[in-house]
Amino acid sequence: MANSKYEYVKREFEFQRHLPASNWIVVRIDGCHFHRFSELHAFEKPNDENALRLMNACATHMLEKFPDIVFAYGVSDEYSFVFREKTEFYKRRESKILSLCVSYFTSVYVMKWKDFFPNNDLKEPPYFDGRVVCYPNINTIRDYLAWRQVDCKLLELKSRFS
Amino acid sequence: MANSKYEYVKREFEFQRHLPASNWIVVRIDGCHFHRFSELHAFEKPNDENALRLMNACATHMLEKFPDIVFAYGVSDEYSFVFREKTEFYKRRESKILSLCVSYFTSVYVMKWKDFFPNNDLKEPPYFDGRVVCYPNINTIRDYLAWRQVDCKLLELKSRFS
Amino acid sequence: MANSKYEYVKREFEFQRHLPASNWIVVRIDGCHFHRFSELHAFEKPNDENALRLMNACATHMLEKFPDIVFAYGVSDEYSFVFREKTEFYKRRESKILSLCVSYFTSVYVMKWKDFFPNNDLKEPPYFDGRVVCYPNINTIRDYLAWRQVDCKLLELKSRFS
Amino acid sequence: MANSKYEYVKREFEFQRHLPASNWIVVRIDGCHFHRFSELHAFEKPNDENALRLMNACATHMLEKFPDIVFAYGVSDEYSFVFREKTEFYKRRESKILSLCVSYFTSVYVMKWKDFFPNNDLKEPPYFDGRVVCYPNINTIRDYLAWRQVDCKLLELKSRFS
Repeated sequence: MANSKYEYVKREFEFQRHLPASNWIVVRIDGCHFHRFSELHAFEKPNDENALRLMNACATHMLEKFPDIVFAYGVSDEYSFVFREKTEFYKRRESKILSLCVSYFTSVYVMKWKDFFPNNDLKEPPYFDGRVVCYPNINTIRDYLAWRQVDCKLLELKSRFS
Repeated sequence: MANSKYEYVKREFEFQRHLPASNWIVVRIDGCHFHRFSELHAFEKPNDENALRLMNACATHMLEKFPDIVFAYGVSDEYSFVFREKTEFYKRRESKILSLCVSYFTSVYVMKWKDFFPNNDLKEPPYFDGRVVCYPNINTIRDYLAWRQVDCKLLELKSRFS
Repeated sequence: MANSKYEYVKREFEFQRHLPASNWIVVRIDGCHFHRFSELHAFEKPNDENALRLMNACATHMLEKFPDIVFAYGVSDEYSFVFREKTEFYKRRESKILSLCVSYFTSVYVMKWKDFFPNNDLKEPPYFDGRVVCYPNINTIRDYLAWRQVDCKLLELKSRFS
Repeated sequence: MANSKYEYVKREFEFQRHLPASNWIVVRIDGCHFHRFSELHAFEKPNDENALRLMNACATHMLEKFPDIVFAYGVSDEYSFVFREKTEFYKRRESKILSLCVSYFTSVYVMKWKDFFPNNDLKEPPYFDGRVVCYPNINTIRDYLAWRQVDCKLLELKSRFS
């Protein structure tokens, strides 16, 4: 809203970062303090099936809500969402893309919780961090996904034998 | 997790931005498509008291969860959180601060919904966008808050007479 | 140099930006106030041959000095330098790349001036601005060069008929 | 220049970064490979008086050319330039400020060389790197200058006893 002498605080301090075109945008979402959260809610180890199904349900809702997401891959309490190379989602503004994705994912996680844990009330608010990364071509995006997949196996082994 | 030939995708593409020291960090959170959301849930105009009380409850939880927040100010479906000048919250990493704040706020909003709207089920997931801005001194942070307050009055007038 | 209580001014305020891998890095250099500079030194219009030859000599020195530059294209008082996709020049640090390129170009311009203008002393210091842009693939880098070439023709027409 | 189908390469890839208001902007310029350069031109150790006087002459020209610079401090082959807090020099665009300062400094260095080294021709082009840092208040800018001054003494001691 304009015409205030205070409005300079937006113009002179608040800067939009736009992500460069022709890059695949990845948003990776990661549970914050989920080790503690999973103990508090008595998740089974190494992987609680209902917790994984809830994560997958959130990802499914993301794909429906944001059709520019063309691929999603999850492991444990993290999920990566790949936007198509040419997406003009929020004009590729980084803060918008990051915050909206993390917020929507979180919102669905809490709303759908009771569908997967009908006898296990939420004891504290689950929340996630996120980051946005750009990959310039199909090779680097493929290697990104391979990296998350390798990490998945390592995490599972670590969790199984510790 | 290290030692994978794919790990370069993190090192060469994923960059941390740290916010400069001695600046007040503001995270502003804003309801996304809340005009539609408020109609869908039959919020009273211009300001639904329960909706405002829910926003305030979320802000209260934010202050308890993140003690480096020293001030919060909200209007309608937005809230600004001011971190103390010297905060080392997540080493002042921008993506961490933005995503965790927006995610936690969203999570509390959904969890507490039924406390304020016991007879009004959530029909779709509410979600918020967010941004991070740095203000270098007490004058600019005060003007930031004045700007939001002026906007609040304008929004109310607009809403009342339209 | 370490161990000073003042050193925090570097750690907490000075941030390195690294350019993302697998992108072609372009540094474009542009004469600052060269309209005035060319009048002051009585350049011929629309294109002073010696001035263009001096620009080309600078570009040649750039290519010899920085072998990671794989292509250079100039028009009037600007020159674009394209670094190879995989360059690790100064670890792809943006400020280093920008400042070193602009500084070296300027230095050669002044040193070589008398070779091209033996009877025309420098009346004031010529100087250039610069910018760094990343292009993620061969199509966008080709279109970048096409853009500069179209601009070149427009500039020449404008200069010829005005 | 507009109206070309190639112009998207600017709009979608070339982003301006503006430095936040109410911060003191520092541009620090540093000789690149000046150890080698000073040997090549037989500078006296630890400090060649003519070389220092040439650096100071460049700084003086900077202050005359860019009146928004309010303070300059140099040691050996580096110089820091502090712009006044409220400067609107090139709308606080980072690339413009960095490249123009480094280029102008370099240009004067080469032009004035023969005034300080009349019998010592330039054997290769001297060039400088640069960086831009923002300091939010008078305390941090004072500590920045103290940091450079401490470094100056350490450099001199190191150079004297090695």
